[in-house]
Amino acid sequence: MTPFERRTRRAQSRLDAAGADALALSPGRDCYYLSGVEAEQSDRLQLLVVPAEGDPTFVVPTLEADAVRTATWVEDVRTWNDDEGPWPTLESLLEELSPSRLLLADRMWTRFSLALREHLPDPDASVGLASEVLGPMRRLKDDAELETLRAAADVADAAMRDVRALGTDAVGTTEADLAAYVEERLAAHGGSGVAFETIVGAGANGADPHHASGDREIRPGDPVVLDFGTRVDAYPSDQTRTVVFDGDPPGAFRRVHEVVRKAQERAVAAVEPGVRTGAVDRAARSVIEDAGYGERFVHRTGHGVGLDVHEEPNVVAGGETELAPGMVFSVEPGVYLPDRFGVRIEDVVVVTEDGAERLNRTDRGWRL
Amino acid sequence: MTPFERRTRRAQSRLDAAGADALALSPGRDCYYLSGVEAEQSDRLQLLVVPAEGDPTFVVPTLEADAVRTATWVEDVRTWNDDEGPWPTLESLLEELSPSRLLLADRMWTRFSLALREHLPDPDASVGLASEVLGPMRRLKDDAELETLRAAADVADAAMRDVRALGTDAVGTTEADLAAYVEERLAAHGGSGVAFETIVGAGANGADPHHASGDREIRPGDPVVLDFGTRVDAYPSDQTRTVVFDGDPPGAFRRVHEVVRKAQERAVAAVEPGVRTGAVDRAARSVIEDAGYGERFVHRTGHGVGLDVHEEPNVVAGGETELAPGMVFSVEPGVYLPDRFGVRIEDVVVVTEDGAERLNRTDRGWRL
Repeated sequence: MTPFERRTRRAQSRLDAAGADALALSPGRDCYYLSGVEAEQSDRLQLLVVPAEGDPTFVVPTLEADAVRTATWVEDVRTWNDDEGPWPTLESLLEELSPSRLLLADRMWTRFSLALREHLPDPDASVGLASEVLGPMRRLKDDAELETLRAAADVADAAMRDVRALGTDAVGTTEADLAAYVEERLAAHGGSGVAFETIVGAGANGADPHHASGDREIRPGDPVVLDFGTRVDAYPSDQTRTVVFDGDPPGAFRRVHEVVRKAQERAVAAVEPGVRTGAVDRAARSVIEDAGYGERFVHRTGHGVGLDVHEEPNVVAGGETELAPGMVFSVEPGVYLPDRFGVRIEDVVVVTEDGAERLNRTDRGWRL
Repeated sequence: MTPFERRTRRAQSRLDAAGADALALSPGRDCYYLSGVEAEQSDRLQLLVVPAEGDPTFVVPTLEADAVRTATWVEDVRTWNDDEGPWPTLESLLEELSPSRLLLADRMWTRFSLALREHLPDPDASVGLASEVLGPMRRLKDDAELETLRAAADVADAAMRDVRALGTDAVGTTEADLAAYVEERLAAHGGSGVAFETIVGAGANGADPHHASGDREIRPGDPVVLDFGTRVDAYPSDQTRTVVFDGDPPGAFRRVHEVVRKAQERAVAAVEPGVRTGAVDRAARSVIEDAGYGERFVHRTGHGVGLDVHEEPNVVAGGETELAPGMVFSVEPGVYLPDRFGVRIEDVVVVTEDGAERLNRTDRGWRL
């Protein structure tokens, strides 16, 4: 049995407890998680329907049928043509199932979820979110997922080592050049594309946590924030380092970098089963607050990492999710001084039986 | 007044007729159309709320506030932090508006639309789709949009001329090489990225309408389907040509290419105000059916092209949308012979006062 089918069978066994009869998943991560089909939503409706009992069914545009059949273990693939549209096929499937509660993919386009709701044969039927069932499953990574996440992190680490190896050669190139180099190295080490827009923020640009990269040249003494990720077999990496390629950084930088590094260290040290996400956030935030930079740590400490680069659990102030073995998230405190520089240090960690395993292992210092 | 504000004011004046009090738009094309903000949905909820009267409001994560303020004419930008989440800010805005019917962006993630529904202060309030109001507006392109679509088509045409100019040099390269060349030329002529995955289908690969590109080498006599697009100021191009770079194509190819070319010609000739989309489809399809290839024309004749590469109107068998000046869509009949080759020819056309304007003007023949 493939991991995809195994997950589907587990999801089916959990539908009852959620008071639901079936899942309806548009193309996206949830659909991949159960079927192995990697696709994106389009104006042509495609759905994986998983009932509480029996076998799942794909309803797909005829054009996509071959690609879907090749990618999945699901045997029942029903097709629809452009001239009839998806509803005749879907209506007969919904008649068969006649769900009283249907759980929809969280990212299904509202145009499809409103239409599905209207096509439910039982007028008293209700809808909910697939995350009610899949959220708790996806939060706890299985062995196949952990192996892939480790492989993705290794690719990111290898690229970061290449970036450090540039040394003073990086000075005089632009942020965009450096971003292109990062992406080339990610691909060279076996990554597939980027998991999010590559961030190279030099000097004052590093003070904007969401700055991507631009024409600014790397100059001696510039703190440079490098936040990038790629994918391996659909799973992403996500890490950040803040380095100085040459010369002396601004005076305050050394202290701020040390504060952020300590905050990240403390947060990772706080990770163990039973601890709440809010406590992990607190561990990082209190170090930064005590150093007087509380106002400059403008985002959450981290986010879950799985098929989605941003997923549950949210490592945020007051977060009440209890950590459990198999959860994976980023720990990425930062301090941002407008018009001056930013510092962020990020690793992806896995909750283990008695603590945390860091998936990113490269040097966290700012010196090359 | 910018085109964005002008469109917003028109949308507001149409809300009443739709029996709705406000629009709630997540980041995406509808949001760009009214605000000028280019962004994608993320797990942090961001909304543009447009009431029937008065000024619109953005609700955005604090992290995105500067980027949003820089990009839009909308003055009321309210922010939320990670520790409180979006709902306190949104609830007070929804209290102010107290809508009895709220129209949601068609592509809003279902997790957000279900949550919005639950947070509506009036328990009898209902939701609908923003396309009820924005669909008819977006279907009829304004002058600013037509100018941008022409510019985007010009970039695609220039790249297609470069591809033809490769001549026999294309032989021996792979589909993926050729796709990379196409993308490099699109960028060189001023395009921004790709509007969809570049398709280079050589020989039998051309018989799969959704084949992207791979390691297959272009060989003498190969029909090669080239379907690609880029963006200019957020608007896409979309064109297809089927060419032979060297040598003699398979015997049936000459006839099939001529059939598809005639079908495309007839469909474009059928375009004028008052004609239904189904009649445009019929014009193409009947040529192909008469030639005996009806079963091999496996998709619709075309799709609307605007901010979305695939939008209304759908040029499909039985389509009942009446054409009107300012509508823009692709005309792209094709014939696909499994294991042999495919032929598709596509131009984007604008409905004018008395016919059609083709935005793509390069040679439609298969010879270089």
